[in-house]
Amino acid sequence: MGKSIAINAGSSTLKFKLFEMPNEKLLALGAIERIGLGNSDVEIKYGDGKKYTDTLDIKNHDEAIQLLLDKLISLKILESFDEITGVGHRVVAGGEYFTDSVIIDDKTLQEIESLREFAPLHEPANVLGIKAFKKILPDVISVAVFDTSFHTTLPEVNYMYSLPYEYYEKHKARKYGAHGTSYRYVSQRAADMLGKPLEDLKLVVLHLGAGASIDAIKDGKSYDTSMGFSPVAGITMATRSGDVDPSVLQYVMDKENITNFDDMIDILNHKSGLIGISGVSADMREVEEAQTENHRAHLARDMFMNRVVRYIGSYVAEMGGIDALVFTAGIGENSITLRQELTDQLSYFGIKVDSEKNNIRGVERDISTNDATVKTLLIPTDEELMIVRDIERLRK
Amino acid sequence: MGKSIAINAGSSTLKFKLFEMPNEKLLALGAIERIGLGNSDVEIKYGDGKKYTDTLDIKNHDEAIQLLLDKLISLKILESFDEITGVGHRVVAGGEYFTDSVIIDDKTLQEIESLREFAPLHEPANVLGIKAFKKILPDVISVAVFDTSFHTTLPEVNYMYSLPYEYYEKHKARKYGAHGTSYRYVSQRAADMLGKPLEDLKLVVLHLGAGASIDAIKDGKSYDTSMGFSPVAGITMATRSGDVDPSVLQYVMDKENITNFDDMIDILNHKSGLIGISGVSADMREVEEAQTENHRAHLARDMFMNRVVRYIGSYVAEMGGIDALVFTAGIGENSITLRQELTDQLSYFGIKVDSEKNNIRGVERDISTNDATVKTLLIPTDEELMIVRDIERLRK
Repeated sequence: MGKSIAINAGSSTLKFKLFEMPNEKLLALGAIERIGLGNSDVEIKYGDGKKYTDTLDIKNHDEAIQLLLDKLISLKILESFDEITGVGHRVVAGGEYFTDSVIIDDKTLQEIESLREFAPLHEPANVLGIKAFKKILPDVISVAVFDTSFHTTLPEVNYMYSLPYEYYEKHKARKYGAHGTSYRYVSQRAADMLGKPLEDLKLVVLHLGAGASIDAIKDGKSYDTSMGFSPVAGITMATRSGDVDPSVLQYVMDKENITNFDDMIDILNHKSGLIGISGVSADMREVEEAQTENHRAHLARDMFMNRVVRYIGSYVAEMGGIDALVFTAGIGENSITLRQELTDQLSYFGIKVDSEKNNIRGVERDISTNDATVKTLLIPTDEELMIVRDIERLRK
Repeated sequence: MGKSIAINAGSSTLKFKLFEMPNEKLLALGAIERIGLGNSDVEIKYGDGKKYTDTLDIKNHDEAIQLLLDKLISLKILESFDEITGVGHRVVAGGEYFTDSVIIDDKTLQEIESLREFAPLHEPANVLGIKAFKKILPDVISVAVFDTSFHTTLPEVNYMYSLPYEYYEKHKARKYGAHGTSYRYVSQRAADMLGKPLEDLKLVVLHLGAGASIDAIKDGKSYDTSMGFSPVAGITMATRSGDVDPSVLQYVMDKENITNFDDMIDILNHKSGLIGISGVSADMREVEEAQTENHRAHLARDMFMNRVVRYIGSYVAEMGGIDALVFTAGIGENSITLRQELTDQLSYFGIKVDSEKNNIRGVERDISTNDATVKTLLIPTDEELMIVRDIERLRK
């Protein structure tokens, strides 16, 4: 038996989960934050509720990974590095090239680096993480798992924008989507719970976290998805706008003297969505708490639900009906009232949630009433488990 | 009995329809094109199939209107200007201020002029038309009919964007929609055909022309609409993109060295949609003709239909079901195959079109099969008739 580690590297963060494989036992998980920013925070949870935390200066990803590995030894989670038999990296953008996860060699790494313009904030950090592990554990198999691969099955009619066609031909300007690893995990679990092959099901999966998207799954494949070329498109998110008329951006830029479109895109990414509308918080829990007293908080939550309802309707129409609706990710797994209120708006589609079954957080459960014609499922996602499973699959 | 004229003034065009009122008899219609561009074209249809055409230089809207009125006399459509008892002007942007059509006086004209930044291409032309008629027929009642008024009933959750709230507070950056006069006309006709009060119906109206939009109508009011702050948003159009991830524009601008966002918006308005995707034509008839031989033409038509299907699904979800789907405007009234193929994709919602009943152009008809649970109606729109009706209503 070996141990596999799933890595999610951001520009100043490094998150991990360590599993014993192939039995998929979670041994440890944690995060290092504020890398390169001073006062970096380290947190590792392991064993039966044990937790290690520290604050120190970590200059870069190399240092962070060295520290993480050393701590795994000193905390006796590992006896030696030799026990690590696989490293899996979450990579945000796989373009049209990566239709599946891949073993990282020089050629694939070069290809990943060439895709950085599709995710200029995330891809360089993903590459840093890959290179740092390669340096420290050069002989361990290393796998890249892309957020976009699952969506490479989108039909052309759904991935193309109504822009001059040459932008696609010359620059591959199209919809790529995100959260693919989550959708892959959750859709397979949904099929298991429903006792049917995934290929025979039509699903709408709501991945509702700080970043949030919705996926239409048909014939076992991603058929349409709410995020677009970038993760800024789709539904209202914690700090991202989701869909917006480009002309209103032109108007706002003129009014606010924003001369650089990049600055406007920055506002769409970081100052819009729940925080932009409510002015209260980017966190749905705090928005929900504020909503009885605060009109803008109430509006933000209503808009979030409305955009979800709109996308569900779109995907029901595109696929000609669905078998099940699935809630996952932070808000989807934890907001009982939001799940209830949202599904109450969808009774026309035969969606009906049992309020007692729904009164739960973060547990796999069919929360539909017995007479619902479309099932509603709650399925906690596990992208890291999917990543380490991919290592096992690809090493064969 | 008086005669009322409905005017639609663009930057270089002037379209009109002259009605005998209150019996709503159409006496003449026509257009002057290429105003101020040299070789202006004049066309007036009147009587039983008579047509007057000419090409001459018309410098400005004052000259165009003087010429039009003179021709109405010389062609013996009118005996004297005194017969004109009302002029109605289509105005593109009414902002939040104009919730209904309005008699134009100095104050309302000033207000209309102040809204030009909401429709920088159209509003100045609309104002030119208003002023030119005021000069020539100063004592005749003049009415402004806004494309946006019908949509001022949109609930906040639907008209707000997930942007920083201050953009709405300070600048009224929000969804305004368009084609309101058409929706008003068509929805009332739909209620008449269905024999029910409009207030009791839930409708989705497809205004599918070169400019195309979709409206959700609930309780007799516009509930949601696909165009946004500007007419560039929503579904794929003849030359407009409809919805697009703003980030893909940032990427394309970078790749194509487009430094000014206004230029990108210009491309979204004039070089996208059917013409951008197909490379063949902005005209759906020509795209349809090309589609068997030409993949991009086929894709353009498929994308057009797909975006319509998505919006219908959204609005079915938002309103919790619908009573009828209504086709109107150029493509909606005339493309038999498109209506058929589009509705074939919507059978899940109980929409079903009878191919024999559907085999018709530009005629008011219920084209549903007898067992359809949602009616499909074909209703030719008449915005000009709505405009002259508004004159009668407001003069009282």
